[in-house]
Amino acid sequence: MAGNSFGNLFKLSTFGESHGEAIGGVIDGCPSGIELDFNAIQNDLDRRKPGQSKIVTQRKEPDEVRFLSGIFEGKTTGTPIGFVIENTNQKSHDYSHIKDVYRPSHADYVYDKKYGHRDYRGGGRSSARETASRVVAGAVAKQMLSNIEINAYVSSVGDIFLKKPYQDLDLNNAENNIVRCPDDIVAEQMITRIQEIRKQGDTIGGTVTCVIKNAPIGLGEPVFDKLHAELGKAILSINAVKGFEYGSGFCGANMKGSEHNDLFNEDGTTKTNLSGGIQGGISNGMDIYFRVAFKPVATIMQKQETIDSKGNKAEMLGKGRHDPCVVPRAVPIVEAMAALVLADYYLINKTYN
Amino acid sequence: MAGNSFGNLFKLSTFGESHGEAIGGVIDGCPSGIELDFNAIQNDLDRRKPGQSKIVTQRKEPDEVRFLSGIFEGKTTGTPIGFVIENTNQKSHDYSHIKDVYRPSHADYVYDKKYGHRDYRGGGRSSARETASRVVAGAVAKQMLSNIEINAYVSSVGDIFLKKPYQDLDLNNAENNIVRCPDDIVAEQMITRIQEIRKQGDTIGGTVTCVIKNAPIGLGEPVFDKLHAELGKAILSINAVKGFEYGSGFCGANMKGSEHNDLFNEDGTTKTNLSGGIQGGISNGMDIYFRVAFKPVATIMQKQETIDSKGNKAEMLGKGRHDPCVVPRAVPIVEAMAALVLADYYLINKTYN
Amino acid sequence: MAGNSFGNLFKLSTFGESHGEAIGGVIDGCPSGIELDFNAIQNDLDRRKPGQSKIVTQRKEPDEVRFLSGIFEGKTTGTPIGFVIENTNQKSHDYSHIKDVYRPSHADYVYDKKYGHRDYRGGGRSSARETASRVVAGAVAKQMLSNIEINAYVSSVGDIFLKKPYQDLDLNNAENNIVRCPDDIVAEQMITRIQEIRKQGDTIGGTVTCVIKNAPIGLGEPVFDKLHAELGKAILSINAVKGFEYGSGFCGANMKGSEHNDLFNEDGTTKTNLSGGIQGGISNGMDIYFRVAFKPVATIMQKQETIDSKGNKAEMLGKGRHDPCVVPRAVPIVEAMAALVLADYYLINKTYN
Amino acid sequence: MAGNSFGNLFKLSTFGESHGEAIGGVIDGCPSGIELDFNAIQNDLDRRKPGQSKIVTQRKEPDEVRFLSGIFEGKTTGTPIGFVIENTNQKSHDYSHIKDVYRPSHADYVYDKKYGHRDYRGGGRSSARETASRVVAGAVAKQMLSNIEINAYVSSVGDIFLKKPYQDLDLNNAENNIVRCPDDIVAEQMITRIQEIRKQGDTIGGTVTCVIKNAPIGLGEPVFDKLHAELGKAILSINAVKGFEYGSGFCGANMKGSEHNDLFNEDGTTKTNLSGGIQGGISNGMDIYFRVAFKPVATIMQKQETIDSKGNKAEMLGKGRHDPCVVPRAVPIVEAMAALVLADYYLINKTYN
Repeated sequence: MAGNSFGNLFKLSTFGESHGEAIGGVIDGCPSGIELDFNAIQNDLDRRKPGQSKIVTQRKEPDEVRFLSGIFEGKTTGTPIGFVIENTNQKSHDYSHIKDVYRPSHADYVYDKKYGHRDYRGGGRSSARETASRVVAGAVAKQMLSNIEINAYVSSVGDIFLKKPYQDLDLNNAENNIVRCPDDIVAEQMITRIQEIRKQGDTIGGTVTCVIKNAPIGLGEPVFDKLHAELGKAILSINAVKGFEYGSGFCGANMKGSEHNDLFNEDGTTKTNLSGGIQGGISNGMDIYFRVAFKPVATIMQKQETIDSKGNKAEMLGKGRHDPCVVPRAVPIVEAMAALVLADYYLINKTYN
Repeated sequence: MAGNSFGNLFKLSTFGESHGEAIGGVIDGCPSGIELDFNAIQNDLDRRKPGQSKIVTQRKEPDEVRFLSGIFEGKTTGTPIGFVIENTNQKSHDYSHIKDVYRPSHADYVYDKKYGHRDYRGGGRSSARETASRVVAGAVAKQMLSNIEINAYVSSVGDIFLKKPYQDLDLNNAENNIVRCPDDIVAEQMITRIQEIRKQGDTIGGTVTCVIKNAPIGLGEPVFDKLHAELGKAILSINAVKGFEYGSGFCGANMKGSEHNDLFNEDGTTKTNLSGGIQGGISNGMDIYFRVAFKPVATIMQKQETIDSKGNKAEMLGKGRHDPCVVPRAVPIVEAMAALVLADYYLINKTYN
Repeated sequence: MAGNSFGNLFKLSTFGESHGEAIGGVIDGCPSGIELDFNAIQNDLDRRKPGQSKIVTQRKEPDEVRFLSGIFEGKTTGTPIGFVIENTNQKSHDYSHIKDVYRPSHADYVYDKKYGHRDYRGGGRSSARETASRVVAGAVAKQMLSNIEINAYVSSVGDIFLKKPYQDLDLNNAENNIVRCPDDIVAEQMITRIQEIRKQGDTIGGTVTCVIKNAPIGLGEPVFDKLHAELGKAILSINAVKGFEYGSGFCGANMKGSEHNDLFNEDGTTKTNLSGGIQGGISNGMDIYFRVAFKPVATIMQKQETIDSKGNKAEMLGKGRHDPCVVPRAVPIVEAMAALVLADYYLINKTYN
Repeated sequence: MAGNSFGNLFKLSTFGESHGEAIGGVIDGCPSGIELDFNAIQNDLDRRKPGQSKIVTQRKEPDEVRFLSGIFEGKTTGTPIGFVIENTNQKSHDYSHIKDVYRPSHADYVYDKKYGHRDYRGGGRSSARETASRVVAGAVAKQMLSNIEINAYVSSVGDIFLKKPYQDLDLNNAENNIVRCPDDIVAEQMITRIQEIRKQGDTIGGTVTCVIKNAPIGLGEPVFDKLHAELGKAILSINAVKGFEYGSGFCGANMKGSEHNDLFNEDGTTKTNLSGGIQGGISNGMDIYFRVAFKPVATIMQKQETIDSKGNKAEMLGKGRHDPCVVPRAVPIVEAMAALVLADYYLINKTYN
């Protein structure tokens, strides 16, 4: 089954391996007449790209996107938007040591079992490099949804949590520090923590919170394609994600109905928003917000026992340039996937009018 | 957009409102030649049905399924399996009080805004009654996947948690008590808690854990249709679900890579299973497990302020027979959605051989 | 793969075998607020039903549709419309003679090879009885598209052709005779021909022409989902169809560009319409018209040689009550499939505005 | 709605305009481990490319495909195969005369109405140049289906018909002449006819016949996704196609059941094959064959009246280098679309075993 497309009316299909010729994608269903801001697209790519700061992988990759179709005189034409990002930094020799050895908690083993033949270099298709294509498409989706604001930020790194609710934060401040946490003091603690972890040759997990403002009422398609269900799928499809909760989330499971219900104001807004902007799977006009758990990166700079493709014991020591913590670079990816869902559901909802 | 179908090769389409003529569905893509155990199907329906114990809604509804097609001489024929469950307990007068009043944290308001015209009786399409159709289809899927064991159970009610990991539990014991918690002592606490809450006219949230054993290696379709992403969507589409995590989940976000990595045994199994049986979006042969957060039921037997469809203030007092806590009845629904995903991905995976 | 659904935004899923409990379907994606004329729906079913005249099968089947959901106070609610038609005329003993014998040019053999286990009674799922569900959904689609006129009629029976172009005909007259040909003189010839064929114990093929007026400009989704491509698929999926052509069709292949081009009037209409109302896969506002070839019914009342399921020679003599020519009853089916395509593409096109 | 993808399990998404940067596509769902013959792929592209002979357009375009992903060490990996074909021959000045003028029987007018903003150069997305991407994907599909033979050929040009049935022809001979008709004498007549037409500044239609040998029994998914229905859609989506018939086709509509039925041999093959290798929508192991009508190319080298985008009368004289008849170049496109359908349905059918 073809699992490399996402969306129904606003649809992204991606291709490409970490160390192949290029990665890229096709955006199908983007309405015509949207004047694209190419700098904004590249800016989102830059927020995701390796080598952008001292707390991310030091790999250098320009990640410049080349659009091949679907745009004429700077505006979308409604035809599919093809794009490629060339792989310019394929240091294949970095990866020869993993050709026949399965890295623990990586996808090497299951790809081998499922497909039989795989591009092992840099993780191939299972590399998070693939998410650059998502960021391109998400940036286009954001421009289609110009009234909707989508802001993600890092809300924890290991056991360092940003405890303030998003309403008490200036979300725009997230881009002012390299860890992308909108609270400068907590950001500093997170940066320090990541640097410590890197020195240990280890990695650390974290969480990202995403807030969507100004989404119209009515997005979401019960009973299976509820807005939060599709957001959940979109987010869970990002590399290293282990959990998704929206609104009150797992905390809501500890609460009573009398505490949890969001009472209405006379204009249809609600006094509280434990629902997270979605009721019955449909947006209600309040802020949509959700939180995402990322596991620690599996590649560590420590010796680990493992096995090779013949089932023999092997040892492995991470090489190359890896992220000690993915969440700073995951922020634009989370936003991109959220934007893809909203663009798709926004178009679907137009069919009701 | 048609949001009432789920799955690709094993596909369920459902229909029906809480107080309409009937609910039902069509299962398309079920392979031929499967000898169906109709008692097992009805048994799963009985696990979900109202009125089954003192801690669930006291509504009485037999929920008997009638199969209309796709089965000949007791075996599936590969053609679509149509089925209906008649609505025999439509006490519409119970619901006249909500005709023009939006219940807090219910879907009334958003359905009105999205569709304009709605069947308000008993929540109509947004009622959890719809999940009975999922249970029927899930029960068929389970029989198709006869080697795979899917067991869900209640892992918390409010602040009462079953703290033992699933490996230390006899999962079959969950069906021996009315709250469906496999630890009898914790089950008793949960039951007491739910009874207290009911007496208060309130409701309470909870969590369900699901464990899938013997899933073959190779299920899952990167990069968007990863197994856990589809499981997440399936589960998040169930009424009242606020969060989904698999394997280490949100706890994994606090961990280091050196703690989190699952080291291989020589046979390809892993020594630990923080990955939750899925790596890179593909099942690796280890147990798949995930946890689901359910919010408290929105209908409470207490007076609440709200608004009517004209935006005027209104008061509302819950009437009728409602669940004080959904998790005991949610257990078979979670299993059903998991079974639908596995059946679909199992068929997809056959195309690789 | 689930092949029993049709459409994207306006989607029909059908189920049911000729001699099972019931046939039926689910219409998903029908917009809310449409006041349904149930008589019009039943009327289309009556146009398709057996026993309606002396030139069709004399089987009696009331074909009454029961709607189960998606309609409240006479209007659609935007939720899925489930419906069933009970099978009241299951004379299974009529079919015991085909249990192990493959009827020539029927689907018995391939169903056995593909599915292994089949309901052989009356052709089971491969029976044209299934198209009754299409007629129900098509009748709903027609009401959604109240401005668009869809009229099909019989344009040939065997070698008796209605040679006038549709523009010279009163299409409404087709319903005034039992063969559904709008020219009374040709209709009489066709009726006589069918009666002769029936007396011979034989069957005869024919063609149906369909004309769609007032379709808006802009329906169709290049490059693969062109309007005529989807119409073609819809029509070719009807039992016994062997060919589809639109506009100039196969005659167009004999023409020169200077003859075939449709020159524009100043208002964007065209002076001729060899394009058949569709250019580049998109409706241009002119009449859409197409022609459909139906083969002769395979069940004949003559002795035929055949084989049984073990590969032994067998003889077979058609029994039961069969149509000597399908085209009179095919007219509402062709209209229904056309309506389903237009409803779907109409909704898709709304996303562009 | 995204109309630029085709297929379910073997899926092609294409992008690109005639005079944009590049055209290309993504093949998703191709199984792993297929050793690709790149010369065979290029060979099919060469059969489609402009400038290949004196009877086609004299435009020169190398049409070299560059694969970007999904292939490792010469073999497919099961991940998406991205590819591009650069547009090297964009003579945009050739097309300035059509910027604001709608060419008769072209897609200019409807694209303007539907999308509002379009790349008018060379027809943009509506150009048949897009079909080069289909040929690439079809060539990959052919290699996946190495046991199945798919051969198309020109069966008529205007009123010059190849009257022999395909069984009496050496289909491989079609590639030995520039019009791709397997009968050398008729081919010569066709070539002469096309040259006459070109001298007149006119164009001419024609038909292509396609024969598929060795398809396994069981391909096809009733009731909507019957094999011939999907073939019909695939073929009708090719530029300039006006009709599709399979097996007996429109001739079958003139026949009696006693003439048309295909009687069985004891091995399950049939004595005749008016069914065209498909019964009940499922392949029966006999040859699958169908015929396709192509209208004459709309661009003629004669003065034509038309209108501009403001609705004013305008005159237009075709410029540039166009095909006088598309069928010679359409042959590999028809094969490609047939191969895509078969590859998809072959994979779907694997789920039954």
